[in-house]
This record gives sequence, C-alpha cells and structure tokens, in this order.
Amino acid sequence: MPSSASIAPAPASALSLAHRYQAVRQRTEALCRPLLPEDTVVQPMIDVSPPKWHLAHVTWFFETFLLKEYLPGYAVYHPDYAFLFNSYYNSLGSRVNRADRGTLSRPALADVYRYRAHVDEHMTQLLALADTLPAAFQELMELGLQHEQQHQELLATDIKYILSTSPLAPAYLPEPERSAQTPDAQAAPVAWLPVPGGISRIGYEGSGFCFDNEQAPHEVLTADFELQNRLVTNGEYLQFMEAGGYRDFRYWLGEGWDLVQTQQWEAPLYWMLHEGRWHRFTHHGLQPVNMAAPVTHISFYEADAYAHWAGARLPTEPEWEVAARYFGATPTGGTFLESNLLDPQPLPADADPGRCHQLLGDAWEWTYSAYHPYPGYVRAAGALGEYNGKFMINQLVLRGGSCATPVSHIRLTYRNFFHADKRWQFTGIRLVR
Amino acid sequence: MPSSASIAPAPASALSLAHRYQAVRQRTEALCRPLLPEDTVVQPMIDVSPPKWHLAHVTWFFETFLLKEYLPGYAVYHPDYAFLFNSYYNSLGSRVNRADRGTLSRPALADVYRYRAHVDEHMTQLLALADTLPAAFQELMELGLQHEQQHQELLATDIKYILSTSPLAPAYLPEPERSAQTPDAQAAPVAWLPVPGGISRIGYEGSGFCFDNEQAPHEVLTADFELQNRLVTNGEYLQFMEAGGYRDFRYWLGEGWDLVQTQQWEAPLYWMLHEGRWHRFTHHGLQPVNMAAPVTHISFYEADAYAHWAGARLPTEPEWEVAARYFGATPTGGTFLESNLLDPQPLPADADPGRCHQLLGDAWEWTYSAYHPYPGYVRAAGALGEYNGKFMINQLVLRGGSCATPVSHIRLTYRNFFHADKRWQFTGIRLVR
Amino acid sequence: MPSSASIAPAPASALSLAHRYQAVRQRTEALCRPLLPEDTVVQPMIDVSPPKWHLAHVTWFFETFLLKEYLPGYAVYHPDYAFLFNSYYNSLGSRVNRADRGTLSRPALADVYRYRAHVDEHMTQLLALADTLPAAFQELMELGLQHEQQHQELLATDIKYILSTSPLAPAYLPEPERSAQTPDAQAAPVAWLPVPGGISRIGYEGSGFCFDNEQAPHEVLTADFELQNRLVTNGEYLQFMEAGGYRDFRYWLGEGWDLVQTQQWEAPLYWMLHEGRWHRFTHHGLQPVNMAAPVTHISFYEADAYAHWAGARLPTEPEWEVAARYFGATPTGGTFLESNLLDPQPLPADADPGRCHQLLGDAWEWTYSAYHPYPGYVRAAGALGEYNGKFMINQLVLRGGSCATPVSHIRLTYRNFFHADKRWQFTGIRLVR
Amino acid sequence: MPSSASIAPAPASALSLAHRYQAVRQRTEALCRPLLPEDTVVQPMIDVSPPKWHLAHVTWFFETFLLKEYLPGYAVYHPDYAFLFNSYYNSLGSRVNRADRGTLSRPALADVYRYRAHVDEHMTQLLALADTLPAAFQELMELGLQHEQQHQELLATDIKYILSTSPLAPAYLPEPERSAQTPDAQAAPVAWLPVPGGISRIGYEGSGFCFDNEQAPHEVLTADFELQNRLVTNGEYLQFMEAGGYRDFRYWLGEGWDLVQTQQWEAPLYWMLHEGRWHRFTHHGLQPVNMAAPVTHISFYEADAYAHWAGARLPTEPEWEVAARYFGATPTGGTFLESNLLDPQPLPADADPGRCHQLLGDAWEWTYSAYHPYPGYVRAAGALGEYNGKFMINQLVLRGGSCATPVSHIRLTYRNFFHADKRWQFTGIRLVR
Repeated sequence: MPSSASIAPAPASALSLAHRYQAVRQRTEALCRPLLPEDTVVQPMIDVSPPKWHLAHVTWFFETFLLKEYLPGYAVYHPDYAFLFNSYYNSLGSRVNRADRGTLSRPALADVYRYRAHVDEHMTQLLALADTLPAAFQELMELGLQHEQQHQELLATDIKYILSTSPLAPAYLPEPERSAQTPDAQAAPVAWLPVPGGISRIGYEGSGFCFDNEQAPHEVLTADFELQNRLVTNGEYLQFMEAGGYRDFRYWLGEGWDLVQTQQWEAPLYWMLHEGRWHRFTHHGLQPVNMAAPVTHISFYEADAYAHWAGARLPTEPEWEVAARYFGATPTGGTFLESNLLDPQPLPADADPGRCHQLLGDAWEWTYSAYHPYPGYVRAAGALGEYNGKFMINQLVLRGGSCATPVSHIRLTYRNFFHADKRWQFTGIRLVR
Repeated sequence: MPSSASIAPAPASALSLAHRYQAVRQRTEALCRPLLPEDTVVQPMIDVSPPKWHLAHVTWFFETFLLKEYLPGYAVYHPDYAFLFNSYYNSLGSRVNRADRGTLSRPALADVYRYRAHVDEHMTQLLALADTLPAAFQELMELGLQHEQQHQELLATDIKYILSTSPLAPAYLPEPERSAQTPDAQAAPVAWLPVPGGISRIGYEGSGFCFDNEQAPHEVLTADFELQNRLVTNGEYLQFMEAGGYRDFRYWLGEGWDLVQTQQWEAPLYWMLHEGRWHRFTHHGLQPVNMAAPVTHISFYEADAYAHWAGARLPTEPEWEVAARYFGATPTGGTFLESNLLDPQPLPADADPGRCHQLLGDAWEWTYSAYHPYPGYVRAAGALGEYNGKFMINQLVLRGGSCATPVSHIRLTYRNFFHADKRWQFTGIRLVR
Repeated sequence: MPSSASIAPAPASALSLAHRYQAVRQRTEALCRPLLPEDTVVQPMIDVSPPKWHLAHVTWFFETFLLKEYLPGYAVYHPDYAFLFNSYYNSLGSRVNRADRGTLSRPALADVYRYRAHVDEHMTQLLALADTLPAAFQELMELGLQHEQQHQELLATDIKYILSTSPLAPAYLPEPERSAQTPDAQAAPVAWLPVPGGISRIGYEGSGFCFDNEQAPHEVLTADFELQNRLVTNGEYLQFMEAGGYRDFRYWLGEGWDLVQTQQWEAPLYWMLHEGRWHRFTHHGLQPVNMAAPVTHISFYEADAYAHWAGARLPTEPEWEVAARYFGATPTGGTFLESNLLDPQPLPADADPGRCHQLLGDAWEWTYSAYHPYPGYVRAAGALGEYNGKFMINQLVLRGGSCATPVSHIRLTYRNFFHADKRWQFTGIRLVR
Repeated sequence: MPSSASIAPAPASALSLAHRYQAVRQRTEALCRPLLPEDTVVQPMIDVSPPKWHLAHVTWFFETFLLKEYLPGYAVYHPDYAFLFNSYYNSLGSRVNRADRGTLSRPALADVYRYRAHVDEHMTQLLALADTLPAAFQELMELGLQHEQQHQELLATDIKYILSTSPLAPAYLPEPERSAQTPDAQAAPVAWLPVPGGISRIGYEGSGFCFDNEQAPHEVLTADFELQNRLVTNGEYLQFMEAGGYRDFRYWLGEGWDLVQTQQWEAPLYWMLHEGRWHRFTHHGLQPVNMAAPVTHISFYEADAYAHWAGARLPTEPEWEVAARYFGATPTGGTFLESNLLDPQPLPADADPGRCHQLLGDAWEWTYSAYHPYPGYVRAAGALGEYNGKFMINQLVLRGGSCATPVSHIRLTYRNFFHADKRWQFTGIRLVR
C-alpha cells in the first residue's frame, strides 16, 4: 500500500478520479462480458478464482476501505458478503476457504452485478465529496483502482485456465486470432547487450503511486553482465524440448525435477500436440504455436532449466531493474491488456537488433531473486498491512508486466511474485550471462 | 438391468412408452427449472454431481443405449459428450474423473438443453418404430426411464446440498413451506408390531420391471421379531442428541466414532442451531425442525448408534422385506417426489396406531445388511453389466424409497445402497427388536 | 469376549491354566527369538505392528484385565505403558496413534522382555489363587490366552511383511524350506462336493471357549450348492493371471478395479518374477512358487475376481459353516502354526479325492458375507465390549484358520474379519457353485 | 563440492589424511555408541533419518566416490547397498524413497558396522597410496570427510528427535546435564554493535576446503546497521510467548501463521510445561529451560515473528558475513560438537559486553536471505554436481554453525540452508536493526 509521501497533490484529482474509477470498473466488466454465468462460478484449481468472485471481491474492497470509512451513513450491501468476498485479510474476520470458492453458486452473477451497481452508485456520491476528504482517502482510492487492475490481469488468466479445462476447448471469442492468419513473423535476432556494473539505485522514488513493496529506494551493487535483447521465443523453447530438456535431471533444481515427474510436464502449460504439430490453448481455442512469439506459461523451474541448457542464467532482481533503467525501458511497443483486451497474448519482438525489447509488457520475467522485503520496508498498520508484506517468503520476483497487465498499472519498479511452480500466468524467460 | 423374462408384452406399449418418455423427461426439466445456470455447474462434494451433468448424463444414456443401437443412421450429437457424460462404464471408454465434474463450465446449460431436445426429437422418431423393434429395445427403454427417475431423486438431493453450502442459505423456492405455517403435528404413538418368523420368499417375481439386483427371488429364514410402526422422528432423535449420544463412544461402531470426531458431527446433516432452536436447511431455506416428522439425513453410523441408545436395532434386509410383505405395504399414504416436487420432505405419520406407517416413501430405511448379490445373481454381459453388480461391496442396503423418490419408481423389492457414512440422501431409521 | 454360560467348570483348571499360560507365553517368545532388535521396531504399513509392540500389548492385556482386577496390591509396571500398548480401547483412555507405532524406539526390546517377566511372575502368583477366584476370572484368563494366540498369528504375518520390505530379502531362518527341496507335489484333483440345502444351525453351542461374535447360535437356510474339495492352488491362480485376469475390469468389483490400477497389482502379494520364474517371499527369503500349494496373500477383490473368471463364486458365511459341519471338518491334516512355527506356509492338499480338504488350517477362506452381528448379539459392558463388536462394519468374514493360526485357537464357528483390500494374512480361495 | 583451485598442496597430506579419516570415522561411531539397535532404525518424521542409515550412507559415499574410483580391483561390499544408501543422487540410480528409510530393519546395525569396517580397511589401503594419486583424489577425500562431519551434526539432532518422540522421554545419557545443576547463569546484557556500510567482499577465498556454494567470492554492498551482541535467549523468547506472540497474526508471515494454527505451535520444539514450569527435551531427558541460554529449535517463521515483535529484524546473508568479518569472529569461545559430544546444547553468552558473542557456534542463525547461487556459481559435472546446487530454491540461508557442528567443519563463509518451517536443528535468532 502506498505511503503518504508518495502521492502527489493533483488539483483535478476529484474529477479525474471519478473518470478513472468509471473506466477501471467498466473494463473489468468488459472482460467478463463474453462469459456465460456458468463460466463465472467454477474453480478448476486453487490458484484460480471464479470470475464472479473477482467481480465481487474488488467491489468489496471499495466498500470496505472507502465507503465504510468515508461515506457517512453507508450500510453494507449484504452482511454475509464480507465472509464470502474477503480474500485473505485476517484483520477483517473469517472467510470462505480459498479452495472452496468454486463450490458456491450463490450469490448469482446477476446479484453480483447488482452489488457492483450499488457500490458504484455510492462511490459516485463519495467521489463528489473527494475534495473535502483527507489525503488518505485519495491514497485508498488509488489503491482500490490499482487493486482492481491487478484483478483484471487475474481475470484474463483465470478465464483462460477455466475455459482450457474443458475437452471442448471452447473459445472465449469466436473470431480467429491474428497470428493464426499470418505466417509466423520472424523474431528479432538474438543479441547480448552489455550492462556495466557498479552501484545503482533501485526502488520507487517518484511522486505517483507505487505499492509498499517497491518503496524504500536503495543502492545495489551489480557486476558487469549481458542481457539478451528479447524474450526467449516458443521456437527456442521447442529446441530445448526436442533436445530432451524435460528428460534430463541435470538441468533442473531438485524440487522442479520432482514436479516434472509427478506432473508429467513435457511442455509449457496449454501446449498440446495436435496432428503432429504443437498447438496451444488460447482465448480463441486451440491455435498453432507462434514460434516467433515469447514462450509463456512456464514455471520458474522450467525457466531456470532452459537457462541452464542454453548456457546462460536468469537475472537477479537488481540486475533486471538496473538493466531496465539502463536501457530506458518504457511501455511503448510492449504488449499489454489494452493491446487486445479479449485475446491477450505476447507478440514477437520486431527485428530491430539495436534495442532491448519487451522489458515492459508481453511476459512477466522470472528473476532468480526471492520476494523478500526491501531494506527499510515496514508493514503498514491495520488490514492493509496484510496487502503485500505477509507473502514475503517462498516466492520469486517477476518483473516487467505481461500482455495481460493494464499498461497504466506497470512500472519499472513493479515487483510481482509467484511460487516457483506456477504456470498459469503469462510468465516468460529473459536470459543474462 | 432387467432380465428378458421380467418384461411382459404390452400391446399398447409403443404409445404408452412415448407418453412415459415425455413425462419422465419433462419432470427432470421441471426439477431444474427454478435453478440458475450457476447452480447447475458446481460440485461441492464428490458425491454430488452438478445438475447440468445429470441433465446431460441421462440423455447420453438414451443416446448410447437406444439411439446408437436402434435408430438407423443416427450420429452422436457431439463426439466429446461420451467422455464428459459417461458416469462409470469402463466398457464405454475413458471419462472425466468424478471429482472433476464441478470444474467444467462447458458445455453451457443451454447447450445441454439443446442436447436434450436433439435426443428427444430422435427418440420420438425411434419410438414411432417401437412396435417393429425387438423385446430388448423395450427393456432398454424401460431401463432408460427408470435410470432417469433415479437421477431425479439425485437431482432433488444434490440441489439441496448445493444450495446449502452457501452461507446465504438461498431458497430454491421463495414460498414458505407447509410445515412452517402450522404447529408441529403429532406423530403416531410408537407401537411394536410383531412379525412371525419362518421361511419367506423375497426378491422380485412379477412381470413388470425390476433391476437385476432384485432378481433371483429366493427363500429366507427369519426369526420372530417386532417392527416399530413408524419411522423415528426428529423429536426422538433430538432426545438422543440431548442425552449425549454424539459424545459417548459406546453407542458407536469404531469407524463411525472416528467420523464423529474428525467431522465433528453433533446433529444430522443440515441441522443448525439458530437463536437457540434447531433449524434445518430445506428447499425453502432455513426452517425450524418439525419434531413430528421422520429424522432424515443421517448416516448408517448415526442410525445404528441411535438404535443402540434406544435399546433396539436396525432390521436386516430380509426382515425388512418380510415385514413389508406381511403388512402389505403400498405407496398409498407415503410421501414421494410427486407429493411436492419442488420441496421434498418427509411428513409425520398420522395417528392411526393400528397400521405400519411409512414403509414406502418418506425416508430410505437403513438396514444392517450389506449390499451383496442375491443367490443366483449374474451380471449381464456388456456395459449394462456394470449398472449394479460392480458396486456390491462395502455398501449397505436401504429400503422403501423416500420423499424424493418418484412413486412409480419404488417397489417392495427395491434395493438401494450407500456407503455407511453418507448423509445427503433422505435416509432415516426404522427400529426392530 | 466370552459369555458366562459358555465356560464349563473344569476341576483341574488352576493347574492347567498355569500350564497353558506358560505354554502360550513361551510360544510368543519363540516366534520372536530369530528376530534382531531392529526387526521388532519398524512398521512398514499401518496394518502391521512392530513385534515389540505385540510382545508388550498382549502383556498389557493380562496386566490390565487380570492383575489389576484380581491380584491384591498389584501396581502397574510403568505408568506410561497403558498409553503405549493399549490397542483400541476407548474405555481405557488415550493411546499412541496406530500409524505411529513404528516411530517409537523405546521402551527397548529388553525392557519389554523385562515387562513380560514381571507380569509373568505376578500372573504365577495370581494363578496360584485361581481356585479361590470367581468364574469371571477364569473367563478373562481364557480370553487373555486366546488373545495372545491371535497375536501369535499376527506376529507370524507381520514379521513376514517386515522382512519382505527389504530389497535384501532377508531370511528369518537360514535353512532352506522343505518345498524348495522337492519337486512340486501334485494337489488333489478338483472335485465338486454337493451340500444339500435346508435349515441348519450355526454359531457356537459347546461348553468351551468362543468369542462373543460366534455366540447366539441360530438357524440359517441354505439352498443346495457344491463346494470345491480343496483350496485354489497357486498353479490355478497363475492361469488366471496368464489369462489377463488383472487387466480385464469385467471380473472385478469397482473398488477392486480401482486398486488394481492405483496399486498396480498384477500378482498376489509377495510374488515377483525372478529370472523368468515366479517366486514368492517367505520366512526363508525368496523361493519359487509351489504350484500345488494353495494360493494365499490375496485380497477379497482378487478372490472374487478369480471366482468370476473361473465361473464359480465364493461361499457365504452360512454356506461355509453348513458345509464344514456337513463334512465334519476337523483340524486333523490341516496346516497350523504348530506345523512349522518358524516357517508357516500352506501345503498342497493330498491326493485323496473323496474328502473335503483344508477346511481348517492352511488358508483363511474369504466369504462373501459381511462381518455383522449375529441375531441376538449383545456387546458386553465395559472395555471388553470393544473387543469385537465395534468392528462390525465394512469388513468381510473369513473362515477356517490358516497355517499361521495356533491349532488350539481355531473352531468351526470362528469368525475372522478383514477389510476387502487386505493381503498380508494367509488368505485364500474356496469356490462354490 | 570443492574446486580444484581451492585445495592447497600439503606435503604431509597422506599421513594427515589417514589420521583425519580415522578420527572422523571414530567420532561418528562415538556418537552412536549410547544408542540401542532399536534407536538406530526408526524415522519419526521425514526430515530425520535413522542413525543406522547415516552410518551406512557416509560409508557408501567413500565407497562410491573413492574406493570405486581409485582402489584398483575394489568390488562393492553389497550390490544392494547403493539402492539402500544413496541419498539423493539421480546420477547414481534409483533408491529407497526418503520417507521409507524407517521401514527397513535390514541390514542389521551389526551388518552396517561390518560394512564400515570393510570400507575403513580398504580406505587404509587406498590412503597408503595417496601420494601417488591425483589432486582430485585429495579433494574427494576432503569432501568425504566434510560430508561425514555434516552427518555428525544430523546424527546429533536426529537422535534427539528420535528419543523425544517417546512419552517415556528417555535419556540418551543418564547423567544430569551441567546446566541443571547450577542456577541459570546470566546472559550478557544486550548491546547493539554498529557495522558501517559500504562495499565488502564475501565468499570463500582461502586455500583450504570449502563447499562449492561458498565459492565465487564477490563484492556486496551493505548499508549501515547494528547487530545485537549475542543470540536471543530463552528468557527473551518466553517474553514473546507470554505477550501472546503465538496468538497474534500481525507478527507472522502468512505461511507461518497457517503453520501456527494447523500445527498448534505455541512454543519452540521440545518445550513443554511440566508442573507449571517450562522444560525442554534434551539428550538427558526432560530438563528445565535455561533462560540465559540461546533459544533454539525454532523455525524461520518464529524467528521472524520474534524479530517483528521485538521491533528489529533478521540479518540478510551479506550483512551477517560482513558483520562476522568486521568483528573478526572465530570459533574461540563458541560451543561446538566437541564441547560436549553426547550432550550438545548452546550455552549462555558470558557477560563481557564489549564483544560480539556466539557468531560461530551455539546456534545456526536464520538469515532473511534465500539460498540461491552466488554470482558465478557453476554446478560441477557428474554426481557431485548434485551435492549442493539442486537445492538452491525455497530454502533460507543459516550461518555460523551450532553446538552440534564439529568445530573443524565451520567457516565464516559456510552456507547452511533449511526450509522455513524446520525446527529440529539447533536454529536460533540474531537480531539486527
């Protein structure tokens, strides 16, 4: 959550906040519009939440942290919704077990939309008062919006997983995807870009929003290294597969090798052989793999094994941020949720060999750094102290955002985190050496 | 499945079969009409199947065993539906794991209704040819109808379970239930009715339909015993609870006592204390327990522990059938699915002390007999040999039908079976001594 | 546990009891003599108890039910032993979880022998007073002796399992077994022996000892049937294996078929192919399978599948006892623990075709009858009410005793019971049709 | 494993290696001498290996990597021992599942000692040839010795755990412990010692032995910080407990809080209230907690929660090594395995406030740094590449050695690693701020 210091005063904030609120809320619903009610209820694995739950949870967040706090006389929409839609805040009482989110048919999807409308209506009232409210209100508004953007990315990836579990391989959208109509583009040729060592500063220092885990900017020391100019492609990853990468324990961390065997991994998630050719499940159903596009839907274990095989390694988190600053990474040219709201997928890097491609957007890049607190990190008091801090163990940092991340949500300093075995996000590989 | 011998030739069969087919199919849909699409998808425990799955599975049964066999040129509606909607027939190939039925959002509910309409249309064509078809066709039709009736009972109980998992305690139907409006009726006073011992014949011998597990009528020897004139009531069961029945291992079988502790059972399924009074979850939401009505939703372990506490015991299967024949049990006066399609619940026995009440209908009666083959039982060849025979281990026989059983589906000789720990069916207690 | 009525007054009982006590206790120790301390501690699966535990548990039984009750001033040997060595008596307080018996290295084996000596010494004192003690004392003595004999059989089978888990295939005894030295004997040719139907009496009626579960003799009705004249041999079972019996679901009950697949069963327990020939693990290590000897170490599921394949079936419990009485079965000629204390194994039936072989001894015969209470069965009050009664669910009756049963422990009416999946006892197949 | 470069040529190496070999091997056996055979077999949790297994595994290591490679004509002692005593080397074939190590009674303890003697005899032959062997031989010898020392520490902690599982609380040694005889010493008063920030070098650079994971010395940047002058004591930890530390989620990482609840943690491992006073299980059985001694047997989660509560934090790995170098930490004054071979326990820091106590010895200090590769780390080829590298995920670094570490085994640069939930090692807390 944001520190007070990090939010700049913005004169037109009341107006712009109301506009942004509306835009964010509408985008969430746009993501869910192609779904059937049936699609919004199921939870095919514990990491995935039903879309109906996402729709309600982000709404509960505004209700709990904004309306209950700042709108005089506001009464909660339903007394049981806190139990149903609290994600993980111990401060806010007991809740449905995460694994049971897919067992609940009620409230109905229509009820959840009514809940959204109710909260939106009261948020509009509250936002009309925004100029009279303390700075803390604006910080919480910002957090609420960023929070809903995080869930937009989860909606995109959870919807993909949900549809993929059916042997019918249903398409979220009926139209063919772009890449299926054109021959595979060529990805930019590989180049290794040197990054000079020394002391650098990382972490957020601007006046805009950032999460609490990015704060406390501090100096890091990195040695000279070289960064690959783009993400590893599906075609390159296929070479690893064909070279027996999934059958040779020497490339793998021990816990990864156990998973390869018990889960019988032999390709990225969503890949399957169909009439002798590798396909992958997409929002448009089963499509041939685009060999020039970045490989995604791989675990940290697969990323690390690939790097081993390729004679390189994954970057550390400081290396990644130092390089991204060195190359002046910006969202321009990257693929984000807005690029193709209903069909997020990473695109091939264009052929310009002089640039460092895809640092922001396209695919989250696994780093070989644990998600631990930055020096000087302090958990906030109250429920929002649970937002990020309590997860700082046994996870790895990912950087750069993906094709399912809203472009306004990403930053150079953004720290995402997942357990090493997770594959359902758009996670990819950046090599260093 | 039925033996050839057991189906009498019926001249008007073609007509009546078509009528019956239509009636059974419509009733299934009537049961599902109050549901939202969301309700039809979830599987909150492994025993419960999503209603959408039931709707499709019974349709697949007609498609597989009737249309594919007897309608010239029939092509299956969808090549993947056999994988999705085969329940447990190894003869018919691989299938979705039972535990994963609730992870599938597709095909959509509307698609399943289209599947039903498609099959109904072709069944109508086929039934027009019925008089030209062999006897085996009519047997399979009968089996298909009986099969769908079995799933009507499961739909009633699965819907109840699905709705109960929500903390919102949603009502399937908004209207108040009958029993909630009137003071609790008095149940008939307890009486013990003597049944003389000797050699009797049990098992099905008529010319109508029966399942293969009821066949091979044979003689059994029973000693003199006494049967209680009605089912044990909620009020009586509450006395057991209040006497500490759930806290005293001496009443319990060992495996039952383990469940009492690990599952923290302290009342029948669906009971909860609400403002100091016992309520139970019903198709109308939470309602006060009717103390005169039969206790239901109890495991065999609870039935047996209650009998222990009450100084009596449960009947064996032969005792039950001998008594039911001795008292000339008929469906008249019993409560069945037709009694209250959208609100099945057992009703109090009326006060006539001279009769043996509720032998058919109201609640399935746990017997202390294992579900094993009758002497001379032979599994049929082919897929239908898997219908009943392969379950004849580790389950107990229940007799008499319940308030969720279609009245035309029950017989004196009907053998139902569940594992001893199951509670989500309308299962109750009949005492003998 | 025994009813008062079932123990005949025996004038010389004090003397004979002391002798029998000594003999039983010594035999238990003789069974354990070839073991190393290491062998007595481990628990390679939950059904198997460490031999050290058996040695102590049977001693605790005498201490708890005899010494504490009848020997004035007796103080327990160690206050923690009741916690450690109580098997399953809720009446007697908390205890080590069954699955954790193999995690305890202490008390040491030598301590357990000291415990045995201590209890034996006090039992000798108590037995000197036997003539002055009430009848209940003698009943409990009898029960304590029978109980220790039951554990002798478990020791024999548990030791076999423990040694078998080592890839070293260690021999309990170094000498070669008899059967390995001689060519396979011929088993008696198969014959089907008719047993006429009618009303018969089963259950224990004599004046000696029996367990409470055999009591309440009662009449049963059986139809005409034929019994096979001997147990199914290893050679016959191998034909089933070679005919694909473990690969064809049609022979199997559903839960059995699941086990075949998840456990990858393809032969009886202890069988393994060694240089192209089937061997089995024995108390002498790995030995070639004797094709004429009865097949053992099979689950109920395998017995039932074999019977299916062979076009026959397993007997019910009443059929078994009626047949055993009809053929006047006696222990003579059967193989029991005394036949070969340190190398129990069933032997081929001799060639006399006129007899019914192996009804008592050699192998426990799976019946297709659930282990339920006999009519009129009443659980005793107090801890001994837990001896048998609470297990009367989800298990099957086995009859006749095995090569690991003490001959003085078996009776025509003896009801043994195991879950359908258990394989580590000497369990075999008797066919009827 | 060691790099070639890191082993200095030592002229008298052959002689000294033989002496060291003998000394290390004898110490391992001295650790096991007080055990009964029964104690050497059991595995009460998956992390703990049976002492018999340790005795054999370290021997197999010498046999596999030294004798088979360098002693001409050497034949392995037993063909199955590689299967039984390989710990985790995929390169060396299949092996017993780790969780099943406690199910094997054979080979007997005496056989394992025979195996040790056999290997020792051949190692003596081999060591006589040492001067003629390549440098790689000496490196492997060194590694074999260090490896056996690692297992000495595990033996000490595994023996403690094994004995602790018995409700008898057996003493490994009968004599009372030192600390129980004297009143609790006072620990040194707390002081915060400043460590200036800047660029420092960490990692091993000397000419002696180190593990491969310590190599690749490199520069790190640390900010100014203060280190507490000694380990957190039991008395201080008790204050955390009494302040409700185990009941307040705000101090805990999310996965730690889940463990507190599911495992019902409320004190360090081995602590129990006995007559109103906290005791802990030791090699001498149950003893009162020495409040001045360092707290041990705590998970990372507990260490981190304590630090939170105390308003401080745990050091990172670079901070720890920088501080240890800054304070010139040496083993002098620390408590190691040699301090009290058969009764390892940490001792109170003496009262000298000017020093930084206990950096080496007494207790492993949890750092808040993941166990990841150092920059430039390369896994060795062959089986020894599996020694350390494949574990570099999901574990945390611990530093400094403990009272169970051989003093000649520890270094300033030594990187130990465990999962965050492990408690059976002598793990403690060093605070920084």
